[in-house]
Amino acid sequence: MAKIAKLTVRVFDVPLAEVLSDAKHGDHTHFELVTVTVQLSDGSEGTGYTYTGGKGGRAIAAMIEYDLADWLIGQEATNVEEIYEAMQWHLHYVARGGVASFAISAVDIALWDLRCKAADKPLWEYIGGKGPECPAYAGGIDLNFPLPKLLASIQDYLDRGFRAVKIKIGQPTLAEDVERIKAVRELIGPDVKFMVDANYSMSVDQAIKAAQAFEPFDLVWFEEPTIPDDYQGFGEIAKHSKIPLAMGENLHTIHEFEYAFDQADLGFVQPDASNCGGVTGWLQVAQLSRKHGIPICSHGMQELHVSLVSAQENRGWIEVHSFPIDQYTTQPLQIENHMALAPSVPGVGVTFDWGKLEDAHKEMHS
Amino acid sequence: MAKIAKLTVRVFDVPLAEVLSDAKHGDHTHFELVTVTVQLSDGSEGTGYTYTGGKGGRAIAAMIEYDLADWLIGQEATNVEEIYEAMQWHLHYVARGGVASFAISAVDIALWDLRCKAADKPLWEYIGGKGPECPAYAGGIDLNFPLPKLLASIQDYLDRGFRAVKIKIGQPTLAEDVERIKAVRELIGPDVKFMVDANYSMSVDQAIKAAQAFEPFDLVWFEEPTIPDDYQGFGEIAKHSKIPLAMGENLHTIHEFEYAFDQADLGFVQPDASNCGGVTGWLQVAQLSRKHGIPICSHGMQELHVSLVSAQENRGWIEVHSFPIDQYTTQPLQIENHMALAPSVPGVGVTFDWGKLEDAHKEMHS
Ligand SMILES: [Mg+2]
Ligand SMILES: [Mg+2]
Repeated sequence: MAKIAKLTVRVFDVPLAEVLSDAKHGDHTHFELVTVTVQLSDGSEGTGYTYTGGKGGRAIAAMIEYDLADWLIGQEATNVEEIYEAMQWHLHYVARGGVASFAISAVDIALWDLRCKAADKPLWEYIGGKGPECPAYAGGIDLNFPLPKLLASIQDYLDRGFRAVKIKIGQPTLAEDVERIKAVRELIGPDVKFMVDANYSMSVDQAIKAAQAFEPFDLVWFEEPTIPDDYQGFGEIAKHSKIPLAMGENLHTIHEFEYAFDQADLGFVQPDASNCGGVTGWLQVAQLSRKHGIPICSHGMQELHVSLVSAQENRGWIEVHSFPIDQYTTQPLQIENHMALAPSVPGVGVTFDWGKLEDAHKEMHS
Repeated sequence: MAKIAKLTVRVFDVPLAEVLSDAKHGDHTHFELVTVTVQLSDGSEGTGYTYTGGKGGRAIAAMIEYDLADWLIGQEATNVEEIYEAMQWHLHYVARGGVASFAISAVDIALWDLRCKAADKPLWEYIGGKGPECPAYAGGIDLNFPLPKLLASIQDYLDRGFRAVKIKIGQPTLAEDVERIKAVRELIGPDVKFMVDANYSMSVDQAIKAAQAFEPFDLVWFEEPTIPDDYQGFGEIAKHSKIPLAMGENLHTIHEFEYAFDQADLGFVQPDASNCGGVTGWLQVAQLSRKHGIPICSHGMQELHVSLVSAQENRGWIEVHSFPIDQYTTQPLQIENHMALAPSVPGVGVTFDWGKLEDAHKEMHS
């Protein structure tokens, strides 16, 4: 191929239509999108990106600009996995997760965009997928919605063609969580899949009680009942309830995923390519998930994960996240017959609408 | 006390007198110093800081400026532990270690500087220390030094009053490491304490072989034989050799330290207040170290750690690191009768010489 010649980093603050809340991150007014466009010496370009819930975007951009850009320039862009490993060691002292994982992810996705474009293949096909589709669920950030509004948002998901939905839990009392779960199950009927997400707001004991109280409602999974650091705590919760556990959005290194697979007794794993090392990091987690016989799902950035999850034999669901990044691309996520469809264009399939992003950023700061 | 009114963040690139190398971070030409001065509504000021081996400094500064400063302004500065916990949750999605730990550390140290100044006490006394002194060792970054130069640098440590020294290992062959260790032991004689540091360059099997080969040389500890993420691997190495293991400089959250104490079978622990959560984070690790009966040491920033380590019943050694941050303060580290002496001025005892830092930064970029 060709050598890396230039990196262009951009940060956008994208306002949400309304304030969204969960149990531990509090209120979200906007998300941050950090994009990296990598230009090669032959003029070809690839774009990668990462996102946050509103904090850290400038630090991620600074890390790419000051610590990665000059070091990447001149390297052979085809050596994606080598560059990935080298980035991890290059940043190691300030890395092993955190902001560095987001920065590495954005660069890695740009390199995969270049790689797939050079091969004239869409991502799902390049990585050996048999087809371009996978199940998708709508993931609400709706902890602060009063019950009627919660139910209206669920109805909206159903109307948009979803047959799987997720709500946030972590109300002041367990009884309130149970009441909301019961009401949602009654609305969606027995056939629609249903997940809940506590955003690690519970202790292990609280989570065990909650999981037991949720058993009548046929949940697909109970996501992040407790802090992601407590792998053995997850294992304890799993031992005391029948609901499969899920996590992954807060794990940033392959070592953290190894601990989770070994100790957390997960039913589903949910890596996010924007913070676990891009396409390369996500595929490493996918490989571990096959070894452990656990379906692989995803968190956030549905417009990219649709290609990654669709290509896996052990595919689970992609989350269609309430941060609508896909609405700022030229091809928002397509749902057909309740399945998400991966783009067929060469590359990672995410082409940003820069004008729309700039307008959103201006609106946020006006 | 008073409310936080203003934060001033500065970044300095400080050149080293010569290029220093270790097994995994490669060559160091300079270190980065990120300082945060917190001003309260009553006009009082405290300064905290963190440092890196040359990468990540701008990302740390961006995180303090964009994600912490506005959020901190207006908070009661006396609530140091509460602010510490709140910073961890505020940044959680882009944190759990990495850059966020460095940013939080710098702010926390500034708040402790304010707290100790308000109480008119030096840090070591404020946190309940019986005296202001602790053992210190000279830690070289000397992997690339030819043997005669290595021995000359060790002699220099002895001449400067040290009775404990550490060298880097991780030469192309174990035989070369053993040769250097043997030569150093012959130079320093049987009474000077001697440590080695592999900067996690070995596999578990390699480290076991190395530890066994090092046994004749009466080493105090074998530091970071393998990657910090592999707590159980440390445990394996400990089981197969008599040399105590040490780690801590790459652990950034209390959860990582808990795993290390539980699984890594450490002989010594070496938290660094610049990257494990400042004074608050470091004291949390110290508390765990007492519970586990393990002497507490430190990594880097000797000018601050001298006050923290001196105050602990289970004190081990401070490292006098080859990044001479203390030389850019108004009171460089004092060694008397082979012991390091903590400053007696109110506050954390680190007052930067801003002119000297600015000159160093200019030299680096001239
Ligand atoms: Mg979630
Ligand atoms: Mg070390």
